[in-house]
Amino acid sequence: MTNDDILTGPIPTPSATPPDILRCAYMEIVVTDLAKSREFYVDILGLVVTEEDENAIYLRSFEEFIHHNLVLRQGPIAAVAAFSYRVRTPEDVDLAEAYYKELGCRTERRSDGFVNGIGDSVRVTDPLGFPYEFFYSVEHVERLAWRYDLYGPGALVRLDHFNQVTPDVPRGRKYLEDLGFRVTEDIQDEDGVTYAAWLRRKDTVHDTALTGGDGPRMHHIAFSTHEKHNILYICDKLGALRKSDLIERGPGRHGVSNAFYLYITDPDGHRVEIYTQDYYTGDPDNPVVTWDVHDNQRRDWWGNPVVPSWYTEASLVLDLDGNPQPVIKRTDASEMAVTVGADGFSYTRKDDTVEGFKLGNTL
Amino acid sequence: MTNDDILTGPIPTPSATPPDILRCAYMEIVVTDLAKSREFYVDILGLVVTEEDENAIYLRSFEEFIHHNLVLRQGPIAAVAAFSYRVRTPEDVDLAEAYYKELGCRTERRSDGFVNGIGDSVRVTDPLGFPYEFFYSVEHVERLAWRYDLYGPGALVRLDHFNQVTPDVPRGRKYLEDLGFRVTEDIQDEDGVTYAAWLRRKDTVHDTALTGGDGPRMHHIAFSTHEKHNILYICDKLGALRKSDLIERGPGRHGVSNAFYLYITDPDGHRVEIYTQDYYTGDPDNPVVTWDVHDNQRRDWWGNPVVPSWYTEASLVLDLDGNPQPVIKRTDASEMAVTVGADGFSYTRKDDTVEGFKLGNTL
Amino acid sequence: MTNDDILTGPIPTPSATPPDILRCAYMEIVVTDLAKSREFYVDILGLVVTEEDENAIYLRSFEEFIHHNLVLRQGPIAAVAAFSYRVRTPEDVDLAEAYYKELGCRTERRSDGFVNGIGDSVRVTDPLGFPYEFFYSVEHVERLAWRYDLYGPGALVRLDHFNQVTPDVPRGRKYLEDLGFRVTEDIQDEDGVTYAAWLRRKDTVHDTALTGGDGPRMHHIAFSTHEKHNILYICDKLGALRKSDLIERGPGRHGVSNAFYLYITDPDGHRVEIYTQDYYTGDPDNPVVTWDVHDNQRRDWWGNPVVPSWYTEASLVLDLDGNPQPVIKRTDASEMAVTVGADGFSYTRKDDTVEGFKLGNTL
Amino acid sequence: MTNDDILTGPIPTPSATPPDILRCAYMEIVVTDLAKSREFYVDILGLVVTEEDENAIYLRSFEEFIHHNLVLRQGPIAAVAAFSYRVRTPEDVDLAEAYYKELGCRTERRSDGFVNGIGDSVRVTDPLGFPYEFFYSVEHVERLAWRYDLYGPGALVRLDHFNQVTPDVPRGRKYLEDLGFRVTEDIQDEDGVTYAAWLRRKDTVHDTALTGGDGPRMHHIAFSTHEKHNILYICDKLGALRKSDLIERGPGRHGVSNAFYLYITDPDGHRVEIYTQDYYTGDPDNPVVTWDVHDNQRRDWWGNPVVPSWYTEASLVLDLDGNPQPVIKRTDASEMAVTVGADGFSYTRKDDTVEGFKLGNTL
Repeated sequence: MTNDDILTGPIPTPSATPPDILRCAYMEIVVTDLAKSREFYVDILGLVVTEEDENAIYLRSFEEFIHHNLVLRQGPIAAVAAFSYRVRTPEDVDLAEAYYKELGCRTERRSDGFVNGIGDSVRVTDPLGFPYEFFYSVEHVERLAWRYDLYGPGALVRLDHFNQVTPDVPRGRKYLEDLGFRVTEDIQDEDGVTYAAWLRRKDTVHDTALTGGDGPRMHHIAFSTHEKHNILYICDKLGALRKSDLIERGPGRHGVSNAFYLYITDPDGHRVEIYTQDYYTGDPDNPVVTWDVHDNQRRDWWGNPVVPSWYTEASLVLDLDGNPQPVIKRTDASEMAVTVGADGFSYTRKDDTVEGFKLGNTL
Repeated sequence: MTNDDILTGPIPTPSATPPDILRCAYMEIVVTDLAKSREFYVDILGLVVTEEDENAIYLRSFEEFIHHNLVLRQGPIAAVAAFSYRVRTPEDVDLAEAYYKELGCRTERRSDGFVNGIGDSVRVTDPLGFPYEFFYSVEHVERLAWRYDLYGPGALVRLDHFNQVTPDVPRGRKYLEDLGFRVTEDIQDEDGVTYAAWLRRKDTVHDTALTGGDGPRMHHIAFSTHEKHNILYICDKLGALRKSDLIERGPGRHGVSNAFYLYITDPDGHRVEIYTQDYYTGDPDNPVVTWDVHDNQRRDWWGNPVVPSWYTEASLVLDLDGNPQPVIKRTDASEMAVTVGADGFSYTRKDDTVEGFKLGNTL
Repeated sequence: MTNDDILTGPIPTPSATPPDILRCAYMEIVVTDLAKSREFYVDILGLVVTEEDENAIYLRSFEEFIHHNLVLRQGPIAAVAAFSYRVRTPEDVDLAEAYYKELGCRTERRSDGFVNGIGDSVRVTDPLGFPYEFFYSVEHVERLAWRYDLYGPGALVRLDHFNQVTPDVPRGRKYLEDLGFRVTEDIQDEDGVTYAAWLRRKDTVHDTALTGGDGPRMHHIAFSTHEKHNILYICDKLGALRKSDLIERGPGRHGVSNAFYLYITDPDGHRVEIYTQDYYTGDPDNPVVTWDVHDNQRRDWWGNPVVPSWYTEASLVLDLDGNPQPVIKRTDASEMAVTVGADGFSYTRKDDTVEGFKLGNTL
Repeated sequence: MTNDDILTGPIPTPSATPPDILRCAYMEIVVTDLAKSREFYVDILGLVVTEEDENAIYLRSFEEFIHHNLVLRQGPIAAVAAFSYRVRTPEDVDLAEAYYKELGCRTERRSDGFVNGIGDSVRVTDPLGFPYEFFYSVEHVERLAWRYDLYGPGALVRLDHFNQVTPDVPRGRKYLEDLGFRVTEDIQDEDGVTYAAWLRRKDTVHDTALTGGDGPRMHHIAFSTHEKHNILYICDKLGALRKSDLIERGPGRHGVSNAFYLYITDPDGHRVEIYTQDYYTGDPDNPVVTWDVHDNQRRDWWGNPVVPSWYTEASLVLDLDGNPQPVIKRTDASEMAVTVGADGFSYTRKDDTVEGFKLGNTL
């Protein structure tokens, strides 16, 4: 089976044992102006620089002890080079390689890693077209959790999750469940269309999520703060810097995940979520929450509208040669389209005919 | 001069000494379904009931020691019956009465007060058409500041301010400055049009504000919380009650006042702001902040859009006979109209040509 | 080997596979006045009642979906009847039973569970003398995470951990590591004495901790809040109720775990910790933090003194017949004793001779 | 009458009109190592430097628009050079001068001010021996309220109050009431001894307080934060810098004032309070709260003990020649002495015989 086949056809369940994935660990993104990106991620957001040179900056959050959670690499086209997961043992890298080979995916193994600080790794173009990486070996650095002297008011303490745009959510969900992920929440409609799904390895609501749309594209990367006021501060700071344009959506409370959130965009348009306070999901029978796509509290618990860009914009992802993956159109119903009726209004409750001031005609 | 004249003509500066106003003290509003309003103000917002009967409910905030900050009165038409200010001495009530008589305004004095808990008071229909009240004598009740066992997560601790809609802001401002108020902030444009002004007696940004629009109408009444998370909780609770429709705008950070805010609406559409953390303004040379109407961080520091209803909707006010005051059209430019350009976009900075995703086309 | 032998001798590593423990799940405690305990846990702390009768109350936290996190049972002697862990599969209960049988521990299996809401379970008297329980089968109840209308200002959202007092910490640590726990932090001195150790299964700093002292006794059970202000509120409420006597220690920031904490005591003297914001520990090479017992920021990052009762007081635990386990004296150095020098002062840094106002002579 | 007489004898009520004091405005303190003090106030606490030279540093809080709230001046003896109040008009400086002259106090008038940024001022040695200053004229600087890009996590936004130690609290209270201050709260006992009193001009609980003890000495200067977490952060940062020794007392909730607090000490031992969230006091009939000295929630609402140093340590104050004022012994009962009984315990409620773990025997 060629790579092209696996990208479009049904995804079989391999006979190989999947790797034991611990958590989403880091993302490598290509930025077109490293200095501008440094201003955004270091000066504004306050991520910690583990190391940097003229081509790349390695960043981590305050509670992290592995080398980095984010790599910014200077390049010609803004895109994502890797969604990287840490696995439990060195042998799990072998398992990952075998697993994707059985799937017919292109893989590349490097014993010294693809980026600084990471050892033996395998990168693959997965069946959804995303560049996934798996590694165990990593350089330890100081966990700065206790270094409050270095914290800013909006300190980012953890990498929480990735979010990926893919045309066929059930197809992607089946693949990730085979890989060992578990669904915690999803959004569906009465006809069984799935608009999004949240999947986890660690004990939180997700390590990654699938958002229905033209893909493969990267929807966002999310970092956690300790408390909600930390997120509000980031907004206040962006206002003070006269960069409130960078606030795309929020802050608000998600319905899905019950977390407090904010979406902002970096100088290349890569979307970053700031996130705090979802719930423990580590039990195998953790209840899955399915939201009706017509429940307008699903994405904002307070019923605040979702801006169209949040549905339509996302970042390209790269293949293993560094070329952008072609984007495939979603053919299922679009969440943006179905949540605005012919009258321009969405609704909160089934059979709810109240036409609120908040929906459909926001200035 | 008749009352009609003073409502439309220029407002002279009286020779009489104005009363020494301490602060906005309470608002009396007419509601059309007292039980529904009780659910909103008591069950949802957690205001403290000082007393109630079948026709009226007297409510106060947790740090208040006077009888009430809000009176809900059952009536046929949703409207505001009084904007009530406390004055420094009993004699200031006399001063207020004489002051408005000199202005030619209709006044009514009641030594036993117009509502429970308040003694000698004067009510007037002021030159802007608003029902203003002045009193000193008041029943003291327990200040519940230390009663944390009674606090909810969104506890309202103070009445902060009123906000009034009036067609001609400079006319209203001149009148209130004569009455002893001081402007702390305002919104203007290059041509000198004033869109809004904030005026204070106590040491905060305002006891009342004038918002340009068809008036006289009541724009909102604002209560304070201690911290921002208290306001976020109110949103979370409204979501849990599936009443997120009641959230009209926010939460957010104001540019004007630098306070954190939320606007919600009661069952009659009376608007309530929840507000926290503006700054000390008590010095006579406190710097006035003038915001450009085209600065889209003026009303929301994070650049989030203002919903149209916030500009257009407001509550009727009553004359001293309990009849709604006729509403006079604003003839100056409308803030809503001027903040959206022909291209459907507002801007953040002068000469800023960036067309952000947030403005003009929100879903 | 008899049960008595295993309680005092060295603890062998069984050849049996240990159960796969998910997390600490609930504690069953005996209280001497159920009504008073209900006032404490329900009226004051706001835990959610899943069910209750005249002999027992089943309580859970807001984000929990299993039947309970705490059982209060009326009885003659205040004590702990069970430290209960959830395991990954029904078969893990079998594994647990076999594991402890091989250790020579007394075990009791009940297919219908020992308490309401829990199915097939095994209880054991473990080698440290503690009543441990393991179960998988459990009744699901509503996860109230989104029910903000029910939250109080100090809402407890999760059971976080247990804390056990045992005379020989290294002995206990070895046993728990064999059982599958991993150490995240500990307190030692230069001579290699271990004063305490924190051990986890889920991705937090601990599911249980061992505190050196006369044991087996229960030091505390800990519930989490979302934010620090929730914990401060609990103190404010206790003050308002004139029950500030129930505050034993804190609030403060732990050095160990980096969490924010408060210790309070229930009407029987059972200690409850309220806890928030430790860090992710789920990687197998998660760095272990070892604190010097002489670092006076280890237990309170702000250097505030630990009250003696916190070191000396703890709850009895029961054997499987419901009789209190005899308490064995600690023979190693006592943390309380070694952290106050002959001069009455502790120190912050090695070779630090500053004698602060805070230590040794607090009023 | 000579200055010495007025310092010890009864204080008459002058016939002169007192100045109209707006608020406590700044304190000038002498520090013995300016670089060390700069580290404390600027690097650790984050106060804003308005200007500085080799002998003095002028600092302000984030919401301030006058030149400074604190002057640090290098000198040989750690002491306070001025407690400075802003008055309403230039003429109030004349009134102040005449008022103190009538009292027989030494006064010194400087039309160019005593420190940078302040114009026409009068300094006096007041009847309690304190160096008081009154001024109106002041240089305006940027109010940084909106400059969130400059805020740290523990940002100090206002100067809130002074606190002065004086042997005879009723004597001092009478003098300050004559000067126009109003008492908001005090601490007394059954025999009518007053241990402390809180007095205000602006609409908060105090601009200054009198604490009974050997004096004249400066007990503390207090700055406000917006929220409680800002204060907790300051503790966390001091821990991270291994300077937790600087935390003298707290954080906690005051009974008096209902504010959240922390006391820390600067390198010279000058005490600084960080403070947030007291209540509005601006009405003339604002209820005075009198606390029983035996109520152990009066100074800490959570019943946490007050460290002895907090009662005994305070800063010297200077006369107008820069020499330390002699300290006069308090002859009334000492609050520290009366709040610990013969049995080593204090109590929470009258007739309360519970002997808690928290009082009298803290480690």
